[in-house]
Amino acid sequence: MSRRRQIYEGKAKILYEGPEPGTIIQYFKDDATAFNAQKKGTINGKGVINNRISEFVFTRLSHIGIPTHFIRRLNMREQLVRQVEIIPIEVVVRNVAAGSICTRLGLEEGEPLPHTLIEYYYKDDALGDPLIAEEHIACFNWAGPEEMQDIASMAIRINDFLCGMFASIDIRLVDFKLEFGRIYDQDYSRIILADEISPDGCRLWDMKTGEKLDKDRFRRDLGGEEQAYQEVARRLGLLDGENSGPGEVFDLNAHRGKLRTTPKKK
Amino acid sequence: MSRRRQIYEGKAKILYEGPEPGTIIQYFKDDATAFNAQKKGTINGKGVINNRISEFVFTRLSHIGIPTHFIRRLNMREQLVRQVEIIPIEVVVRNVAAGSICTRLGLEEGEPLPHTLIEYYYKDDALGDPLIAEEHIACFNWAGPEEMQDIASMAIRINDFLCGMFASIDIRLVDFKLEFGRIYDQDYSRIILADEISPDGCRLWDMKTGEKLDKDRFRRDLGGEEQAYQEVARRLGLLDGENSGPGEVFDLNAHRGKLRTTPKKK
Repeated sequence: MSRRRQIYEGKAKILYEGPEPGTIIQYFKDDATAFNAQKKGTINGKGVINNRISEFVFTRLSHIGIPTHFIRRLNMREQLVRQVEIIPIEVVVRNVAAGSICTRLGLEEGEPLPHTLIEYYYKDDALGDPLIAEEHIACFNWAGPEEMQDIASMAIRINDFLCGMFASIDIRLVDFKLEFGRIYDQDYSRIILADEISPDGCRLWDMKTGEKLDKDRFRRDLGGEEQAYQEVARRLGLLDGENSGPGEVFDLNAHRGKLRTTPKKK
Repeated sequence: MSRRRQIYEGKAKILYEGPEPGTIIQYFKDDATAFNAQKKGTINGKGVINNRISEFVFTRLSHIGIPTHFIRRLNMREQLVRQVEIIPIEVVVRNVAAGSICTRLGLEEGEPLPHTLIEYYYKDDALGDPLIAEEHIACFNWAGPEEMQDIASMAIRINDFLCGMFASIDIRLVDFKLEFGRIYDQDYSRIILADEISPDGCRLWDMKTGEKLDKDRFRRDLGGEEQAYQEVARRLGLLDGENSGPGEVFDLNAHRGKLRTTPKKK
């Protein structure tokens, strides 16, 4: 495994060449970064949980007709995905004001937005992922107009699906980030969902207590980030093996990253 | 005149109640600000020149069918305009990379953009006029979708017109800012061009020398801002009375703000 060609190392994942042309292996690290990597740390077992949550979400999204890069999970920290030409845009979907939008537009954290809001950020660490508009995307040809239509309509559908999924486990989906990629079928290209969906790129608040169950625990030094990630996985039924897919029991204890047990909430 | 009710004092203009309902008097000050008013100063005679340039531009724009708030110039520093409900959006049209977009997106100043780019900023001094996208405008209902279509199509037409106008006097229109307002005709409302168009809100570069003929001279402490503003007015034929409108000679020397004569360029 260690002799595979590494394609790219990001802040939370490493990408390796896959076993077949057009495939990639996504390895999920425990590394956590915030504020454009000015803050760095580790959340024990995060990679394992994110791999599992992202598998679950991508699989379920494909069931409602969202095309994704996900092929299958390989092991605790790795999944096989389709190789895509990544669109250099971070798509952020917001239901409730939190994070950067609050200071930018003078909103109170927790204020529900009048409507779901899609924002685009230019994926460039050196520039700090600046906010952009569709006009910039068109001007610099980062994506075509039809691609942007596909992206926006998928983002809205994904939001509806995720809001429902999290609502059923008493979690409020405040906002989340998506990335999309382009794949080529002969002369045509199309847009599919790429990257991951996990508490790293979502704001997830407990509906009853308001407790944050996402990377803001790390960003804001709230502590308990490991437990928060586990709690999301637990509520999704991913810790007891029931949603682990055929022939597989998902045993967190088998992994070296020590994961403490979170006391069950009433 | 001094007993008129002041409606609003902005950074470069004061608005007074007009003589008839639905009208406003725009008084052009010599005050100059930059970087969200962190830098303050005066450009002698600026108000007089901007009043005159803006009259000229708005009048000519109305000739190509752009509806504007401009009614008539009253005197050296004042113009009568229609009262509008201002749309809280600064519309920036860019042909060449300069100013904030360079640091934001990592572009070289002077780099022509692949296409003309329209940007929207939320008009809020306390927030530093943040960049926004159409999605924010829709989400917070700052303008309706049809209003935004009107704004975008007017902005494009205005850009084409101004590029031509400035090209004919050897000036490159790098970028400029527009503001729009809403007026009500009985049950209907429509969007018209408001505010001003002057070297305060444009980047104007001499085509031959590259010299800046706009507020960047003040922003960047280049000096000669008075001469630059005058030079634009002079090239537009506004200093010698030829374009001053019927029955009026535009005599800058009649005004107390001393305006030095700029040596004529070859």
